[in-house]
Amino acid sequence: MQKTLAQLTDRLVASYGEFGGINHLDGKNLPSKRAITLITKDLLRLLFPGFFDDKLIHSSEIKTETGSLLAEVLQNLESEIAKSLEYYPPPELQVPKRDLRSVARAYTIELLSSLPRLREMLQTDTEAAYNGDPAALSKEEVIVAYPFIEAIAVQRLAHELYLNKIPLIPRIMTEWAHARTGMDLHPGAQIGAYFFVDHCTGTVVGETALIGDHVKMYQGVGLVAKSLSLGQKLRGQRRHPTIEDHVTIYAGATIMGGDTIVGEGSTIGANVFLTSSVPAHSLVIQEEANVKVISKKDRQKDPGDFTV
Amino acid sequence: MQKTLAQLTDRLVASYGEFGGINHLDGKNLPSKRAITLITKDLLRLLFPGFFDDKLIHSSEIKTETGSLLAEVLQNLESEIAKSLEYYPPPELQVPKRDLRSVARAYTIELLSSLPRLREMLQTDTEAAYNGDPAALSKEEVIVAYPFIEAIAVQRLAHELYLNKIPLIPRIMTEWAHARTGMDLHPGAQIGAYFFVDHCTGTVVGETALIGDHVKMYQGVGLVAKSLSLGQKLRGQRRHPTIEDHVTIYAGATIMGGDTIVGEGSTIGANVFLTSSVPAHSLVIQEEANVKVISKKDRQKDPGDFTV
Amino acid sequence: MQKTLAQLTDRLVASYGEFGGINHLDGKNLPSKRAITLITKDLLRLLFPGFFDDKLIHSSEIKTETGSLLAEVLQNLESEIAKSLEYYPPPELQVPKRDLRSVARAYTIELLSSLPRLREMLQTDTEAAYNGDPAALSKEEVIVAYPFIEAIAVQRLAHELYLNKIPLIPRIMTEWAHARTGMDLHPGAQIGAYFFVDHCTGTVVGETALIGDHVKMYQGVGLVAKSLSLGQKLRGQRRHPTIEDHVTIYAGATIMGGDTIVGEGSTIGANVFLTSSVPAHSLVIQEEANVKVISKKDRQKDPGDFTV
Repeated sequence: MQKTLAQLTDRLVASYGEFGGINHLDGKNLPSKRAITLITKDLLRLLFPGFFDDKLIHSSEIKTETGSLLAEVLQNLESEIAKSLEYYPPPELQVPKRDLRSVARAYTIELLSSLPRLREMLQTDTEAAYNGDPAALSKEEVIVAYPFIEAIAVQRLAHELYLNKIPLIPRIMTEWAHARTGMDLHPGAQIGAYFFVDHCTGTVVGETALIGDHVKMYQGVGLVAKSLSLGQKLRGQRRHPTIEDHVTIYAGATIMGGDTIVGEGSTIGANVFLTSSVPAHSLVIQEEANVKVISKKDRQKDPGDFTV
Repeated sequence: MQKTLAQLTDRLVASYGEFGGINHLDGKNLPSKRAITLITKDLLRLLFPGFFDDKLIHSSEIKTETGSLLAEVLQNLESEIAKSLEYYPPPELQVPKRDLRSVARAYTIELLSSLPRLREMLQTDTEAAYNGDPAALSKEEVIVAYPFIEAIAVQRLAHELYLNKIPLIPRIMTEWAHARTGMDLHPGAQIGAYFFVDHCTGTVVGETALIGDHVKMYQGVGLVAKSLSLGQKLRGQRRHPTIEDHVTIYAGATIMGGDTIVGEGSTIGANVFLTSSVPAHSLVIQEEANVKVISKKDRQKDPGDFTV
Repeated sequence: MQKTLAQLTDRLVASYGEFGGINHLDGKNLPSKRAITLITKDLLRLLFPGFFDDKLIHSSEIKTETGSLLAEVLQNLESEIAKSLEYYPPPELQVPKRDLRSVARAYTIELLSSLPRLREMLQTDTEAAYNGDPAALSKEEVIVAYPFIEAIAVQRLAHELYLNKIPLIPRIMTEWAHARTGMDLHPGAQIGAYFFVDHCTGTVVGETALIGDHVKMYQGVGLVAKSLSLGQKLRGQRRHPTIEDHVTIYAGATIMGGDTIVGEGSTIGANVFLTSSVPAHSLVIQEEANVKVISKKDRQKDPGDFTV
C-alpha cells in the first residue's frame, strides 16, 4: 500500500510540473478567499448595523463597536489589497514594490470613507424593494430576508474597489454573493439608485452594463455580451447593454450587446431575447405561445411528449 | 492613523442617525437568523430521522433522541416566535405583551404536532420525485441528494407558521432553503401532494400561488405576479396563478397573474410566457425557433454574432 | 409541559413506523454527506495545488503535503465507497460482502490515479474560460473566482466514480457543487475538452448528455429529457441531447431529448426551446419579440400591466 501511495504521489507531483496554469506554487501570495469573505461580512455589518449580529447593539455601544470593527477591516483589507496589487500590478500603477502597502492603505481608507455614501444608495434600494413587492411586510424583512440586499450591497462595495483597478478582490467579493444569492452582478457594472431585483437566482449583469435609476428586474434576467471569437481582444470595450431609468425587466429576459439601449420607462416581458435597441416607453413581448387543447385520452398516453 | 480611524468612525456613526430604515439599533430584538437556521435543521432531522445525522440511529434510541430534539426545538422556536411577535405584532393578535410568550408556545406546539402530517405529505413528494426522474436510483438517493426535498420540506414547515401569521420567521426559513437550493418557494403558497421540481435552481413560486396534486415542474419556472405600480396596495390580494392537478411545466416557463389558471393535465413547454388561462389538457408551446444554416466559412468569421 | 412533550414524541415516533421510505433507521450506513464534502474539497486541493490553501505552499514541501493529503483521501473515500456499495450493491458487482472493502480500495486508487489526467482536462477548461470571457483578467482569476471551475472539476471527478457504477457518492458530490454554483452537471454526462459555462446559475446537464469539445454555454441552459409518463422505465436509456464540437448555447436555451443532435459549429440563441436536431453550422433563434411603443401617459398608468 505504501508503494501505491508513493507512486500516486510521484505521478501527481510530476503533473504539477508538466501542466502550468493551474498550479499556484512558489508564486506570490494570492489574496485569500477566506480573508476576503470575512472582510465582506464585516463590511455588511458596518453598512447595516445591528442586522447581522445576534445580540442587540445599544446606541451607547455603537461608537466603540463601529470603531473596533473599522480598525479590523482596515488592517485586513489593506493586507489583502497589498497582496493583490503585488500579484497582479495594474499597468497604470507606477509605484515601486516597497510603496504598495501605503497605496493599499490609501485605497482601503477610500473604501471605508465611502460607506456613508453607499448607505445612502442602499437606502434607496431597500425602499425600492419594499415598495415593489407586495409580499414584503416591512423594510426590516427586506434587509433580513431578501437575498437582493446582500447582493447589491456587495456589488456596490466591490464597484468602489473596481474603480481603483484593484485586481481579483472585487470579483472574489461578488462571486461570494453570487454563490449565496444566485445573482452575478459584476463589480464593473454601473447601477443607479432605487434598484431592485426580486428573487435574484440566475440574474446576471455584465462588466460594462449601465443601469439607470428605478430599474426593477426579476430572476434569470441577463444583461450580457455577445460571445465573439475575438474573446480577450474585447477587454475594456463596452459589451453589455444600457438600461435607462424606470425600466422593468421580467424573469428570464436576455438583453445583449454594448450597442443595445432599452429606452426609459420600457417593459421587457419574460423570456424575451433582445439584441437591438428599443425606444422609450416600449413594451417588448415574446411572440404569443401556441395553445393546443388535446383530448384527455391522448394526453394520458404521454403527457410529456409534446412533439405530437 | 488613529485620527483617520476616529474620523471614519464619527462619519459612519453619524450616518446611522441620518438615514433611517437600514439600522437596527436600540430597537426590539429581531428574530436571529442563525437561531432560525439551527431550528430549521433540527426540524429537518425530525422529519427525516437518520438521514441528516452522521451516525446511525438505532430504533432503541430513537425515542430518547426524538424527545430531546423536540424539547430543544420547542424551547428555541418558542423564543424566536416570541421575539418575532413582539417585534411586529400581527394586527389580528389582540394579546398584551406579557402573554406573547404563551401564545408563542402554543404556536410552537401546533407546529410540532403537525410533523406527522407533514411527513405524510413529504412521503408523497419523495415518491413523485423518485417516479418522475429516471436518473434517481432509490428513494434514499432522492432524500439524501436532491435539493428539492429540502426545499419542499422547509416550505411545508414555513407554511404552517405562515398560516398563523407569524411574521419574519417563515420567510427567513424559506430564504435559507432558497440560498441552498436556488428555489424560492414562498411560505404562503398552497402546494398539493405529490409535488416535484427537478433541479430547482431559479424556480420561484409566489405568495398567493395555488398548486394542485401531482404537479411536476423544472428549473427556472416562475409562478409570479405582475409588477404593478400599485405595489404595496396589492398586499393580501391574489397575485399569482393557479396550477391544477397533473400539470407539467418545463424549464424557464413563466406563468403570471392571479387570474391565470392552468387547467388540469396541461403541459407548458420550456420558456413560455403565459399571462392568461388555458383550459384542461392544453399543450402550450413557444413559437418554433428560426433555424438558418450558415456556411462554415461565414460562421467561422464570428460564430457568436447572430445578428447577421 | 412534560406531558405535551411526551405526547409529541410518541406521535412522531409512531409516524416513523407508519410511513416508510423517509426514515433511515436500523438500516445499513448511508455514506455520510459531510464526509463526502470534505473528501471533495481535498480532491479539489489535489487538483489545484496552492489555490485553495490560505498559506503559500513551497515546492520543497509539495511532495510531503501531496502525499499526506492523498493518504487521507485514500482512507476516507475508501470507507465511504465501501458503505455505499454495501448499502446499494450494483447488480453487476458479484462480490461477497467481506470483499467489498478491497473492491472499494481498488476503485479509490483508480480515482486517485486519474488525477493527472483530470488535471489535463481541467487545464483545457481553464483555458476555454479565460479565452472566452473578456472580463477575465488572468487564469488565476478564473480558478480562484469562477464557479465554473469548481463545478466542472467536481463533475469530472464524479464521472470517474459513475463509470464504475458506485452508487450515491457521485451524485452527492455534484449536488454539493450544484448548491455552491447553481449548476447541476449530472455525474453521468460525457463532457469533452475545452468546456466553458459562464455564470453557471441554473444550467442543467442531464445524465445521458453528450458534449463535444470547445462547447461554450451560459447560465440557465438545459440539456434535458422529456418528462414522460414511463418514468423509471427509461432508466439507462439515452434521454438527453448530443452537442457536437464548437457549439455555443446562449442563456436560458433548453435542448431536449435523446434523439436531438446539435450539429457542430452551431449557435443556439437565448431562450430557444429546441426539441429536434439541427445540422452543422446552424443558427437557431427565437421568433423575434413584438415591440410596441406606448405613449408615456398610458405607460404611467400601469407600466407592469402589458396585457393591454
